[in-house]
Amino acid sequence: MSERKKNSQMETNASPQPAQAAYQDLGFGSRIERSSKRMINQDGSFNVRRIGGGIGAFHPYQYLITIPWSKFHLAVVLFYLTVNGLFSGLYILAGVHNLTGTPSMGMDMPHWLEDFLHAFFFSMQTFTTVGYGSISPMGFVTNMIAGVEALCGLMAFALITGVLYGRFSRATAKIRYSKEALIAPYQNINAFMFRTINRRQNQLIELSAVVTMAWYEETESGFRQKFAPLPLEREKVALFPLSWTIVHPITPDSPLYRKTPEDLEKMNAEFMIMIQGYDDTFAQIVHTRTSYKYFDLAWGRKFDMIYHTDEDSGMIVVEVNKVDQHSHAQLN
Amino acid sequence: MSERKKNSQMETNASPQPAQAAYQDLGFGSRIERSSKRMINQDGSFNVRRIGGGIGAFHPYQYLITIPWSKFHLAVVLFYLTVNGLFSGLYILAGVHNLTGTPSMGMDMPHWLEDFLHAFFFSMQTFTTVGYGSISPMGFVTNMIAGVEALCGLMAFALITGVLYGRFSRATAKIRYSKEALIAPYQNINAFMFRTINRRQNQLIELSAVVTMAWYEETESGFRQKFAPLPLEREKVALFPLSWTIVHPITPDSPLYRKTPEDLEKMNAEFMIMIQGYDDTFAQIVHTRTSYKYFDLAWGRKFDMIYHTDEDSGMIVVEVNKVDQHSHAQLN
Amino acid sequence: MSERKKNSQMETNASPQPAQAAYQDLGFGSRIERSSKRMINQDGSFNVRRIGGGIGAFHPYQYLITIPWSKFHLAVVLFYLTVNGLFSGLYILAGVHNLTGTPSMGMDMPHWLEDFLHAFFFSMQTFTTVGYGSISPMGFVTNMIAGVEALCGLMAFALITGVLYGRFSRATAKIRYSKEALIAPYQNINAFMFRTINRRQNQLIELSAVVTMAWYEETESGFRQKFAPLPLEREKVALFPLSWTIVHPITPDSPLYRKTPEDLEKMNAEFMIMIQGYDDTFAQIVHTRTSYKYFDLAWGRKFDMIYHTDEDSGMIVVEVNKVDQHSHAQLN
Amino acid sequence: MSERKKNSQMETNASPQPAQAAYQDLGFGSRIERSSKRMINQDGSFNVRRIGGGIGAFHPYQYLITIPWSKFHLAVVLFYLTVNGLFSGLYILAGVHNLTGTPSMGMDMPHWLEDFLHAFFFSMQTFTTVGYGSISPMGFVTNMIAGVEALCGLMAFALITGVLYGRFSRATAKIRYSKEALIAPYQNINAFMFRTINRRQNQLIELSAVVTMAWYEETESGFRQKFAPLPLEREKVALFPLSWTIVHPITPDSPLYRKTPEDLEKMNAEFMIMIQGYDDTFAQIVHTRTSYKYFDLAWGRKFDMIYHTDEDSGMIVVEVNKVDQHSHAQLN
Repeated sequence: MSERKKNSQMETNASPQPAQAAYQDLGFGSRIERSSKRMINQDGSFNVRRIGGGIGAFHPYQYLITIPWSKFHLAVVLFYLTVNGLFSGLYILAGVHNLTGTPSMGMDMPHWLEDFLHAFFFSMQTFTTVGYGSISPMGFVTNMIAGVEALCGLMAFALITGVLYGRFSRATAKIRYSKEALIAPYQNINAFMFRTINRRQNQLIELSAVVTMAWYEETESGFRQKFAPLPLEREKVALFPLSWTIVHPITPDSPLYRKTPEDLEKMNAEFMIMIQGYDDTFAQIVHTRTSYKYFDLAWGRKFDMIYHTDEDSGMIVVEVNKVDQHSHAQLN
Repeated sequence: MSERKKNSQMETNASPQPAQAAYQDLGFGSRIERSSKRMINQDGSFNVRRIGGGIGAFHPYQYLITIPWSKFHLAVVLFYLTVNGLFSGLYILAGVHNLTGTPSMGMDMPHWLEDFLHAFFFSMQTFTTVGYGSISPMGFVTNMIAGVEALCGLMAFALITGVLYGRFSRATAKIRYSKEALIAPYQNINAFMFRTINRRQNQLIELSAVVTMAWYEETESGFRQKFAPLPLEREKVALFPLSWTIVHPITPDSPLYRKTPEDLEKMNAEFMIMIQGYDDTFAQIVHTRTSYKYFDLAWGRKFDMIYHTDEDSGMIVVEVNKVDQHSHAQLN
Repeated sequence: MSERKKNSQMETNASPQPAQAAYQDLGFGSRIERSSKRMINQDGSFNVRRIGGGIGAFHPYQYLITIPWSKFHLAVVLFYLTVNGLFSGLYILAGVHNLTGTPSMGMDMPHWLEDFLHAFFFSMQTFTTVGYGSISPMGFVTNMIAGVEALCGLMAFALITGVLYGRFSRATAKIRYSKEALIAPYQNINAFMFRTINRRQNQLIELSAVVTMAWYEETESGFRQKFAPLPLEREKVALFPLSWTIVHPITPDSPLYRKTPEDLEKMNAEFMIMIQGYDDTFAQIVHTRTSYKYFDLAWGRKFDMIYHTDEDSGMIVVEVNKVDQHSHAQLN
Repeated sequence: MSERKKNSQMETNASPQPAQAAYQDLGFGSRIERSSKRMINQDGSFNVRRIGGGIGAFHPYQYLITIPWSKFHLAVVLFYLTVNGLFSGLYILAGVHNLTGTPSMGMDMPHWLEDFLHAFFFSMQTFTTVGYGSISPMGFVTNMIAGVEALCGLMAFALITGVLYGRFSRATAKIRYSKEALIAPYQNINAFMFRTINRRQNQLIELSAVVTMAWYEETESGFRQKFAPLPLEREKVALFPLSWTIVHPITPDSPLYRKTPEDLEKMNAEFMIMIQGYDDTFAQIVHTRTSYKYFDLAWGRKFDMIYHTDEDSGMIVVEVNKVDQHSHAQLN
């Protein structure tokens, strides 16, 4: 029986397509229609729209921690005004006379507006639990509404605390990719290469990179999407203090072998990049993605050095903004 | 000595049943009595009840972050009312006259109820730290109770903040499984397959799937539960932008080979699915489980395409709600 | 050069003691003096005291999230009283007359105590930000102190929020180990085995176990501590819905082969257990440890079944409190 | 096709430089100019300055959780004063007469300063939501400003809560490295070794260490930076209850073979250490780094024992402050 088990285990490994092969199409499938669009955008998002997911597919927390800060602040302010507006309505229904203090707005305004503002200010003072007491609730109903509002306020700020923490603690690695990928001379052949740098002051360690090339190929049954991983000179670095130039040597096995810029355009070539690393500050594994399309390639160029040793301090100085710089180089 | 150590290490690997084999019964054991019930429910929970664990087995935080939102809100409201009720009692014991302000409820009610409500409103204003001051404590005892209540209030909301964050940050992947698994034609044989899609807008990456078949087999000593992992066409995908159809080709080694729907019913077949992936937004590994019972299989069907390229935008559009759709296909 | 690199890599693997061998002494070293004490206590802590670490070795957060709840609550109350006591002193120094309201404690007490309590109550109302206003600050100094105290209060509760979340979200797996390990018949030999069960309602998945035996051996240079990993029938289970009996078959290679209870006592044998798993609720990897000493072994016993299928519901019912039960079994 | 895929997979593994080789230069590159500076400082930071990253490279949360506590508290106090100063200005613009209560500072001061302080105290009471009510807002504009300030206050403290939690929950392992690395006798050869100890009371488990030697080598084209991993006697320990002495035996393959202190100085040798482990309390993987420069080596020394068994309690006692102690030993 033990023997049988070991066999069935081996069969798994000998299944028609090995597990590693799965990384060849990256989950995009091969039946995608011809399109000049990228599959992966330069910011790492996918060129895919998901529709029909229904209400269950929406996750408010996920929404709140991924929207930009401007939208987030707007959402907080709108929420604050809406909630206070609603509770003001309730206080008015329960009778504004149950809120002590005289509504003296110091401006000329209709009575109902003064009343509303009186209730609105009380609501703000209750929701934020500031509770000056210059306005205070009277009677059963108004007191109960105020008690509920203070509870809601605390719950809301508990939630906002969580969202703010979530926004901040997301280890969004700021790996900067060179704008262009180069076809550069490499040893006695050429290589496809691009450069990355950590823009943040935190340390990324144990980085690894995967580069997959996608292109169209004409088959009997029309065009088909093809995928191939590009073997790299080095797939991992232990530390990332400077920059990292990721290099795919164009050997005869490479799908880039003897290809011209025109060939790549005809093939609609896209180079999909995935880099993962461990963020030392946030103690999290972070992933970044980007892609280079055939028109993002610069041929016959090589990257300029971006670090030098400072003579005075003996420190290595890295110039982040030079990551894109490259100069002419004769291809082999 | 170094030699001996290496040997004992090897023996570990050569132990009667290899470590990987452990995945064959998934921890369910083989002595389970015959039952038509599933082992794993479609929502991924186990059909198992644990009793006699005692009070130490209960973890309030775990309870509070896993109950549905409706229950959670109910729990908060009940807790709020209970705590305020208890502190109201204490204020009454310490003398309501130590709470300034006149209890004018604006309704006709007995004196003791007015007093209770006066204390209750003060309690709410203290517990939420809103503290209008329209009611304020006097005397040593009442002041101390109020000081304790305000502390309790802050602790309670600290706790609720943590629970809310816990609820939100749990990376509950919303992987949608097709309602039915199919027996579909595949290359020149047939295959067991089902389809999954990410309902959320977040990105899942590095997904891997394990499919285990469980069935009854007649042995000399009665029926026994059997388990076998089903080798998959591909066990991993690097990205999950579209849908992923997980395919087990029914080769002669498969426990499904030449089985009819009737056979599977007699075997009480269950297909247990485990998928894990890395959630890009929450930086967490997420797991989902489901199972297909023999009656969840559709024979001689194939899945319909659910994505197409939008002509205008060039984007790939995925229709999530079509994940269940399949149509007739001639089996091999 | 590439060749050289590959070589130096291989040498690493061919270093005198292979990396896996490191697990043989578990970090305890072999020069430990003879002692009847356990190395690992049954609750998983080490029988080791670290001294001379200095003040830098103390981490208040770590302390606050690992102490029992009773100690934690005591610490909060003491902190609350101390801080309010200190600020009361400051208010008295700045002049109690700068705190409005009359200190009417409703009890007979000396003037200085009334003043102190007046300041103390104001301090509590400020620190918790409840701020009724029945007592309020006047003058520059008192107002500034109050402003600082309110800030301190908010910071303190921010901190307590974090500590409470930390306490709760620590995924303390409640894996229950059987009180005794058994020497039980197993197939046609005997085996060392113990049973584990998850007391919590959460799901643990992908469990793996490591068992190391430690004993004394007489060498020329006196007694030496020896360590050996015990190969297990299965080192991993994918799911953990029921119980898991971890079994080390006593083959001729086992250090337990043909040993009697007396032998093990003379060897001062200790079985150190490490189990790790993934907690589905907290999305964390959890570790537990325990140990069995030679006197924790029961010879010629086998574990009783602790689960059965409920006839009515078809559910599997696990009786957690039966995890320790075993009955007589003839050894081979 | 399946065959082709397996091939291209193998090619990946057969790429010019194997992936593991990448760890040889640790990401520092080989074109670094000659410098007597360390690459890795003893506290684990890199001797690298990144410039030109622009504003996007700054991450306030990362800054706030990595600065020392003194700076953090200063930042909070400055922020508190600044915000209250700004809002005071707004209240003065809206008219101080809209803040009830008389500004009686109890000191002789100009009118404008009294007004400012009145507004400042109201601002503090609003921002912290303490809201005594002794000063309270009147009129539309002042009420709205106060409502906004209370919201800002709550948001700010939500944020501070998150930052405090982030500061505390960062699992900063306090692994103490011996001040010097030793060249000590080891079996019948010598070895490079250093000692580590966990200063904290938490448990670190599954530790692994990597040691890389960096030095200059004269080539035709000038000096070049060289890197080589040093094979270790044991690269991993399962538990870390005592101390761990990490040992690189100086075999003929070692770059240290037959080197004298003078050789290492000429080579400008640096030993870069990386240790990672799993923190049992924080459920996180932690990394530490350090380096030994050639002048941090002590030749012909061996480490003194730092633990002994306490006769009374039977416990093992570790003396953390003895981690640096070593005594004379004859080299082989």
